[in-house]
This record gives sequence, C-alpha cells and structure tokens, in this order.
Amino acid sequence: MNLRTLARALFLAVSMISALGAETLQEKVRAYRVAHERDIMDEYRELVAIPNMAVDRANIRAHYDGQPVNPAQWAPGWEPFTPKFVTGPAERGGKLIEGWKSGDPIDPQWRLIGRGAADDKAGVMTFLNAYAALKACGVTPAVNLKFFFEGEEEISSLHLGEILEQHRDLLAADLWIVADGPCHASGKKLVQFGVRGDVNVNLTVFAAKRPLHSGNYGNWAPNPASLLVNLLASMKDDDGHVLIKGFYDDVIPLTASEQRALAALPSPDAELARELGLARPEAAGRSLLEGLHLPTLNINGIVSANVGSLAANVIPTTARATLDLRLVLGNDVSRQVAKLVAHIESRGWHVLDHEPTDADREQFARLIRVEVGHGYNAQRTPMDLPIAKAVVAAVQSTVDYPVLQLPSAGGSLPLIVIEQLLGAKVVTVPVVNFDNNQHAENENVKVQFLWDGIETCAALMTMP
Amino acid sequence: MNLRTLARALFLAVSMISALGAETLQEKVRAYRVAHERDIMDEYRELVAIPNMAVDRANIRAHYDGQPVNPAQWAPGWEPFTPKFVTGPAERGGKLIEGWKSGDPIDPQWRLIGRGAADDKAGVMTFLNAYAALKACGVTPAVNLKFFFEGEEEISSLHLGEILEQHRDLLAADLWIVADGPCHASGKKLVQFGVRGDVNVNLTVFAAKRPLHSGNYGNWAPNPASLLVNLLASMKDDDGHVLIKGFYDDVIPLTASEQRALAALPSPDAELARELGLARPEAAGRSLLEGLHLPTLNINGIVSANVGSLAANVIPTTARATLDLRLVLGNDVSRQVAKLVAHIESRGWHVLDHEPTDADREQFARLIRVEVGHGYNAQRTPMDLPIAKAVVAAVQSTVDYPVLQLPSAGGSLPLIVIEQLLGAKVVTVPVVNFDNNQHAENENVKVQFLWDGIETCAALMTMP
Repeated sequence: MNLRTLARALFLAVSMISALGAETLQEKVRAYRVAHERDIMDEYRELVAIPNMAVDRANIRAHYDGQPVNPAQWAPGWEPFTPKFVTGPAERGGKLIEGWKSGDPIDPQWRLIGRGAADDKAGVMTFLNAYAALKACGVTPAVNLKFFFEGEEEISSLHLGEILEQHRDLLAADLWIVADGPCHASGKKLVQFGVRGDVNVNLTVFAAKRPLHSGNYGNWAPNPASLLVNLLASMKDDDGHVLIKGFYDDVIPLTASEQRALAALPSPDAELARELGLARPEAAGRSLLEGLHLPTLNINGIVSANVGSLAANVIPTTARATLDLRLVLGNDVSRQVAKLVAHIESRGWHVLDHEPTDADREQFARLIRVEVGHGYNAQRTPMDLPIAKAVVAAVQSTVDYPVLQLPSAGGSLPLIVIEQLLGAKVVTVPVVNFDNNQHAENENVKVQFLWDGIETCAALMTMP
Repeated sequence: MNLRTLARALFLAVSMISALGAETLQEKVRAYRVAHERDIMDEYRELVAIPNMAVDRANIRAHYDGQPVNPAQWAPGWEPFTPKFVTGPAERGGKLIEGWKSGDPIDPQWRLIGRGAADDKAGVMTFLNAYAALKACGVTPAVNLKFFFEGEEEISSLHLGEILEQHRDLLAADLWIVADGPCHASGKKLVQFGVRGDVNVNLTVFAAKRPLHSGNYGNWAPNPASLLVNLLASMKDDDGHVLIKGFYDDVIPLTASEQRALAALPSPDAELARELGLARPEAAGRSLLEGLHLPTLNINGIVSANVGSLAANVIPTTARATLDLRLVLGNDVSRQVAKLVAHIESRGWHVLDHEPTDADREQFARLIRVEVGHGYNAQRTPMDLPIAKAVVAAVQSTVDYPVLQLPSAGGSLPLIVIEQLLGAKVVTVPVVNFDNNQHAENENVKVQFLWDGIETCAALMTMP
C-alpha cells in the first residue's frame, strides 16, 4: 500500500451495512496488527518523516498537510520530521528511546514524535491498516467503502468544495466518517457529532515608519504594541468573555439530547487542570465541554519587536497578532468577522487591506491592517438519527465501557461543505491520545492509540 | 591613537579655562580634519566593525558597547558590523554606495551604517580627533583634560559607580562633558543639561505547561497572551497616559528658566510627524519636548508564540513583554518599580522572581515573573550656573545661529552617579544626527555630523 499517493484528513464513506460479528473480527484484526507491527510502524515512520506542512506545495502533492512548525521550539533531539519513539511527553519528562531500530519491540505506551504524527497522519494509517487487516483476514466488508483524503485542511481546505462539486456522483454516500482530533482525556473512545467552524485573522498595527529610541521619543511617538494591546484587551476580559458586540448572538443552543449527552460525559477538568498546571480555568464555573459549544476568540500569537535579552529600548514600528475565531452552529464566518471589524472601527481605527500609504498615514491616526483567512462554518449531525446510532454501536463493540458521545468537538474541519454539497451526514471518530501536542511543538501519538484505532476502524467498516 | 584600549560613552573633564580664539581654532581644526579625512574614516570604520554589543564580553574588553542587534531586521545588504556608506536612511530610500574604497572622496551627506556608528562610537571618535587636531595644530588647551570611556552603558553601567569611587582623586573635575544622544531634529547644535533615568522590566505570564490546540481547549484554558495584553492595557491608555497609581506623583516640575528654555526651542513636532508618517502624537496637545520631561512606560517588545505565516492555532504556554521605564527628576528607580509591581498585584496577579513551581501553579491562578534590570535615576544640572553658560558659549562659537538648550534629554545616561559620587556638574553636548536609528536596525551617522562634532569638541577643549 503506497501512502504517498494519498492526501491528509481521512474520510470514509459507508453506504451499506454488514452483518459480521464484531468480537471475532476484533480478535482477527488484532492478530493481523501484532503480526505486522514492524511493517506498519516502518511505513508510518516514513510517512511522518515527510515535511509536508500545508504551505509546502511540493511535499503536499505527495502527502498530508500539517501545521507550521518551528523546530527550535522542540525539545533537544526531538525533531519534527525525524520520527522517534519517546517514553512520554516532553513536559512530563519524556525521554528519547536510544538505539531503537526497525524490528525491535515497540512498547505500546511509547509515543512516536513528529509533526503530523497525531494530526492527521494517524487517521490515514489506522483506516488503511484496518482495511488491509480485513482483506488479509478474508473479511469482505458488507458496506461500500470510499476513501477520501484531504491535503489542505490546515490551510482551510481551499479546494475541497470544488472537488466535491466535481465528483458528486463518485462521492455519493449515506454517511461520512472522519478520523481527526483527539480521543477523550480519559483515554476512552469517543464519537463526535459535530465540529466548530474556524477562521483566522491577522492584525497589523502601524506606527512610525522607523523604529525610535524609547528615550528620545518616549511620551510622544505612539507605541504600536501599546495600541494593539489596548485593542485586544477591549475584545476579551480576564474571564474569557468576548466583549465584541453581538459575538454570542447567533449561537443555536444545544438540543435536549445534546445536553443530556454532554452531562453524561466524565469531566476531564480537574485532572487536566492538574496536568497542565492551571489553578483555575479561563471562565469560573464554565466546564471544558460547555466551552467547546461556544464561539472563541483566541490570540494564536502576538509579536512586536523583541523581548528579554534581544529587547532594545525602542518604540517599534509595527505590532502583529494572529487571531483564531472558532464558530459554532448558528455562527457565520462573514458575520463573525464583520462583528470583529465593526468593533475595531468603533474604537477609532481605520481598517486597511494593504500596507499604509503616505496618504493613509497623513489622514488616519490609528492604522490597522486586517487580513482575513479562508474560513468555514460549524457542522453538527443530530445524535438521534439511526445511522448516527449505528456508528456508536460499532465503536461500542470494541470496548467494555460506554462509548462517549460529544455533540460537537472543539476543533474544526470543513465538514459543513460535505453536508451542504453532498447532502451526506457526517460523524467523527477520533483515534489519537488527547495529549498529543497537536498543532504545537513535540507533537506525538501514543502507540497503543494507533493499535486501538485500527480495531475501531475495522469495526466501522463492518458495522451492523 | 589606538581606539582598542578605550571603552564606550565618552566623558571629558574640563577643569581650567583657555583663552584661544575660537574662530581661528575652528578653521585650524577643520583644515586638520580635511587633510586627515581618509585616516579618520578608515579608523572609524574599523571601530564600527567590532561587534561589541554590551553583552558581548570578549569584544567589550577591547571596545564600546552597543544595543542588541537582529541582523535579519536590517535592510538587504546593510549589515550591523560591516560599516558601509549609504545615500540616506533605509526608510527614505537610501541606497548603498557601491564600489567605494578607502581614500575615495566621501560626500558629507552620506551616512555610515553600523551598530554603534551613532550610539556611541561617534562620541569616541569626535573627541579623540578633536584632541589630535589641537595637538597637530600646536594648540595647547589651557584647561586640564581628562578622558573617560564607559563600556557598559547599554547594560545600565553596572560597574561605573565602583570605578568612580575607586578613582575619586584621579577623576576630580569641575565639569563633565558627555557626548551621547542626537542633535536637535532641525540639525542644529544643542546643549543638554540633564538626562532621564532608566530601568528595564521583563514580564513573563505563565499559562498551561504545554501548548494547547485552540479548538480543543479554546474557552477553557487561559490564554497567556490575552492575560498579558489585558494587564498591559490596564497600565496605559491610548493617549499615552500611564494609569499606574502614583506614576507621576514624584515628578519635580521644571524651573522658570527651564520652562523658558523649552519654550525657546523650535518645535520639531510637525516635521517629525510628517517624516515618521504619524497623523498625530501619542497624547493630544503634548509636544515632544514636554513629553521628554515626564516619566515613561514603554513596551519595548511583546512576544507570545508566532504570527502570520508562522502562526499555529494554539493557546501558547507563555507571553513575554519587556518594558522600559524612563525616570525624571524626583523619580526613584525602586519607588517607580514598586508602583508597577503594586499595580500588577492589585489586579490579582501573583508575582514570582522565578519560573513557577508545581506548588505555585496549584495555588495561584495568575502567575507572572517580574525581572527588574539594574536601573538609575535622572540627573539635571541648573542652566544658570556660570560653568553651564561657558559650555553654551563654546558651542556657540562654532555656529552662526543661536545654540539650542534643553533642560533634559529624553534618553538616559547614568550621570547621576557622577554628580553623587564626585560632586561634579554634568552637561551633555550631542554630536550625531537625530535620525540615526539609535538602538534599532539600520543605525547610521551622517558624515557631516562627525566633521562638525570634531569642531564642537575642539571648541569645548579650549573654552574661554
């Protein structure tokens, strides 16, 4: 199986129903995996080694896109595109496994590190190996399977809609199953019925054309970092409440079933807070799961000049921030961005879509460039549909605890495009560990989650 | 003359009075400079080429300290430690002079680029060449001259006090003349009677121990960039007014003479605003010169995670800012920092002097590390003293317009140490162009200012 011909987020279309016994199947799949562990892992390490960030067009033509990566932020010896095994997360003292070579035993508690190891090459490898296992075991899925891979998810799936429109007939299906995002913090398997929408916005504040000595110009020349800081502070309070007018107005509340499912989920909050070293969450009294069903305004990053030993006594020329706005059902990308822009303008800013010209600088005291990325809206499938219940039953057949059900994940995928263009329902079945450092340095996947994921996927392909 | 044995900001002690005719002298000094331009500039380029930032102990042992430098921020082909001539500032389309070699004519309107070219190797070279010129012209200064060079000014003159104390007798003088900071924006020569004090403070806000996916944790995990932004916004409004309690309380107002001198200065504001591309200053109605006589709170830089094409959809682990606090007469470093820390604490922050431990994280929801640099207070010499008036007369002898007089510069030097430890008066006579990008990228000195500076220094050494 040549993974090089495939592209990122993995979608599996299921349109028929099989009658195979799941328990027997799981044992067969597990035996296949144990026998092929070396090959599976060799191939996976090769996949993770490909530096295919979403913006890297050359490597993306062959493979799966990842988030941008700054190797300097990774732990010493941990490299984004040299997959290695480690004993645990860097933050909890994880150590590199020295001297391991292909064919040596693999402790399933180890983690494989690399950009994309969890998000989302893990989805690709679990689905494809599940299919290989079924084939090797002589099990013919009684459902029609269609595999669909996306290579631009981290840059907002720029061409997904176009491709779906071009291939409506080929992609016709009752249900799409998506493998992305993490399992529950408890480690338990999870079915998610929705995702948040997402849009990125870059803000650049402009002050003097050249950097100025903070002594010779301090108290006269505007400081762009101060101005940006004051603008951002006006958008969100210390309790995480967004202050932009109408920010929460469009939100469609959870249904009674969705609220019940949310209440039935174990709360990861206390354990997570301890693990992350947080005395209290952003908003007093708001649980993690409640928060995932509200829109967000997150500062991904802010940079103006330098800090610490690199800092100089200057008034910088510009200050930049990148915002991430997550959307929930009811929100609309263009309406949400319009509220943000209206807020900025209400505070006396002149909004530009370009670098300021001399004329702009002469006319307006507060100049900000707002660059809006390609975004998409949230998607949520009703949990009460028979096909949604069938998915839960299939995952349930692989474990002896009640499978967890989440109305919407906190993360984002452009699933709304599938619903709108193809009329298919969409459900997400995540496979990777929750503490995988997705989108950040030291990204990793716990090996046991890969093995369990293969069994989950096989059950879905043969779901009754 | 071997510059390698000297250290940074240049101090000249004058304790006697000469009776030489200034007009004749200036002509002699100019003739010397014209005859020695090649040697002077060769030696100066060699001086600027030494990468002696203040933190670079090895190069500082030989030479003069500069601010930190990030070569990536300089214009293409403009390098911090490869001095070259350019036609003007990078921001105004300045071009490198191609093919120039030692001995070729030097247009006095050109600028020499390099870290330290203006701040403060220019002070070293003008004083030493003035002395060389007097010697070559057979002019014996009728005053006792003492040269003093400081190599740690950009890191707050850590050892200056100790050295002054050890050599009280050797350094005894009536007056210290300092060459630092820029001339007036009009290009006119200037005498400054004081400097602001200065102290740097690094702030680091800590949130989760590991970076988190902004979708999976957004609305639950605190965002350190948001928290830092809100804290900084609480310190200063959009009009540049510092909101920290008592921030302006200690300020000693300007005397009547000082107010008159300030009023007599031409206002550079309109021209500066045009040149810098600013529609209005930070505070409506406050002039640049008025602002220099108030304490500041400047954000030198702020960094949390990454922005633009490097940004990822994460909740960062930390956010950092470096603040620069300038002080005026009446302010005290420890009192001013205490007000800042009290402000931070009043907003619910727990202030640390170390990285947070697990116990800190468990106990306190808002953790911030505050690192305070070595600072010093402001210094101001009364303008009415006879020796202060003699300095003005000497500079006046070299130009045909009224020399400008400024009660205090906006920049900082540890001159208070000289006044306190040696009982000497201190006056500053700047030599470099105001648009020299001091402390920032593309630092430069206009050649004509070097030539004029040599004449100014010669006049001071022979002042009647």
